[in-house]
Amino acid sequence: MPELERHDTIRAVAFDGDCLRLLDQRRLPFAETHLECRSADDVATAIRDLVVRGAPAIGIAAAWGVVLEARRLAVAGKPVSPETLEPVLQRLNTARPTAVNLAWALARMRGAIAHLSHDSVAVLTAEAQAIQDEDLAANRRMGELGAQLLGDGIGVLTHCNTGSLATAGFGTALGVIRAGFAAGKITQVYAGETRPWLQGARLTMWELVRDGIPAKLIADSAASHLLRSGAVQWVIVGADRIAANGDAANKIGTCQLAIVARHFGIKFMVVAPASTVDMATSDGTQIEIELRDPAELLGFGGQRTVVEGADAWNPVFDVTPAGLIDAVVTERGVIEHPNAVRMRAVFAAGSA
Amino acid sequence: MPELERHDTIRAVAFDGDCLRLLDQRRLPFAETHLECRSADDVATAIRDLVVRGAPAIGIAAAWGVVLEARRLAVAGKPVSPETLEPVLQRLNTARPTAVNLAWALARMRGAIAHLSHDSVAVLTAEAQAIQDEDLAANRRMGELGAQLLGDGIGVLTHCNTGSLATAGFGTALGVIRAGFAAGKITQVYAGETRPWLQGARLTMWELVRDGIPAKLIADSAASHLLRSGAVQWVIVGADRIAANGDAANKIGTCQLAIVARHFGIKFMVVAPASTVDMATSDGTQIEIELRDPAELLGFGGQRTVVEGADAWNPVFDVTPAGLIDAVVTERGVIEHPNAVRMRAVFAAGSA
Repeated sequence: MPELERHDTIRAVAFDGDCLRLLDQRRLPFAETHLECRSADDVATAIRDLVVRGAPAIGIAAAWGVVLEARRLAVAGKPVSPETLEPVLQRLNTARPTAVNLAWALARMRGAIAHLSHDSVAVLTAEAQAIQDEDLAANRRMGELGAQLLGDGIGVLTHCNTGSLATAGFGTALGVIRAGFAAGKITQVYAGETRPWLQGARLTMWELVRDGIPAKLIADSAASHLLRSGAVQWVIVGADRIAANGDAANKIGTCQLAIVARHFGIKFMVVAPASTVDMATSDGTQIEIELRDPAELLGFGGQRTVVEGADAWNPVFDVTPAGLIDAVVTERGVIEHPNAVRMRAVFAAGSA
Repeated sequence: MPELERHDTIRAVAFDGDCLRLLDQRRLPFAETHLECRSADDVATAIRDLVVRGAPAIGIAAAWGVVLEARRLAVAGKPVSPETLEPVLQRLNTARPTAVNLAWALARMRGAIAHLSHDSVAVLTAEAQAIQDEDLAANRRMGELGAQLLGDGIGVLTHCNTGSLATAGFGTALGVIRAGFAAGKITQVYAGETRPWLQGARLTMWELVRDGIPAKLIADSAASHLLRSGAVQWVIVGADRIAANGDAANKIGTCQLAIVARHFGIKFMVVAPASTVDMATSDGTQIEIELRDPAELLGFGGQRTVVEGADAWNPVFDVTPAGLIDAVVTERGVIEHPNAVRMRAVFAAGSA
């Protein structure tokens, strides 16, 4: 799909040999500014503050955070070792709780750290780069696999942002949408605005408009009216953690899209790399759901919208039961009607 | 419920003998300013621009718009007659399409106009005042009836604003919530923020905080995560038009709340005065759904949030099928599991 290559200019996370440059997603779509992280703590703060977001992207950023710490130790003449790096691994791991890709990337870096002998910084840099490169390759593969499931001339609805901004590039659910559009199968995309942080409105619409893919923004509340209209044949979303039975945690609102899609007989696809699959978590009830500051709902762009004294409840993920998912797409293949047996056939415990 | 009387100080619509004062709901909760309407066209514009909103309130405002025109004609020495008033009735009727209360109130004024003999302005003033007073009485009655359906110590979720601001006072769904709280049955209210216009965040939270009713705002997308948690036993909403078979048009997002509520076995109540029932509309497919300016989704508070060149689809109502509604509450009584037969038993064709 050569016509899509140019869009790979969007890079949420880029290590320039000296510092980690993060495209500041809080300021998109109107300002394309970068935050330069020079320490692991800078990276942890950037993840916590949503400078970088999206399950694969925060895993990649955290891996680079470990590299930054290794470089700092090396420059200071201190040992680069499991003992010296473990505190930073721990700090990065607690930056956000729900997406397992963060823990997965750090576990992978921990594995590399355990076997360091010489050229420690170079080895860790290569590992972080591999995590990033493999994510991009996984997204392209998922794009192909997911697009094969689609019929011709269809409309799709997506939620949150799962594009280049959320990953190493191309995207997960948005990668399938890109591939489906390139293949001439998708003719119209709808994007939920994704309150409170408006990832759909600010980020997904930015990516879709750049790509020239026909797209309309909807209020999250308009999904059932849209799905009832017949304009959409597939709902395609990403995931932050997929449990061993196929239950999938994703951006708040995903579960109700799945319920509504099933109600109207519309297909529901979850697209995520193998790094999102957590075979150590038996089902969705075991997934920690991040609660964020109520202030995110009580105002907008620094402007208070709700009366003083008001309270809010702000969970930012929910869990879609496997039974409501028609297909889980990973780079290892498509799992239709996921359940524990079908998941295990692809992801033997621990292999993810 | 004497402790609630003080809250009847909120008046969205007030005729002061000279002009119609509308509490400007675009500026709440931070500025309590009034727009003074001195002509029917002022009222039509105010309805179109959402200075006043809420199905019963726009019906009441439109009735006063007819009075303003009758006064203007009388002052100008022109006849106050069906012929001279019909153009204004038509203009007011097209201000917004979905809520039938607008057409209902104007039909009632048209009925009064048809029988005018002398004291025309006084007769029409009395009719508009009756429409307003009867709405307040209906709301208090619906509050009693709806609260009787509730169990003890429950949580409820509501959507949009159905309170004093949307009616002559007390509210429809919010009236049931007020009555249920006063009766000690409701211990926690959740309000969906109701994008794009944030009626839940700006207006409902303002009313609930004023009343001292424990309330938490949620993103519209958080409903299924909330309902799954067990914290809510009833979803309680208003309506803009209820068809002869019990299908109910209401704020965009209501239908998906009903689908999700049914999925989790949670009860769903629609509260609206008899003036919202439209026995001339056979079912929900016949209800015109208002599409508003995409700009309402593309920005916020005058601040653009979505990339230039992006499009949006902005339907502001949807239809909840009768089969997903556990109870329709009107001042004439409760209709459980509404269908055409049960609706007809209460609302013989034409009587609404």
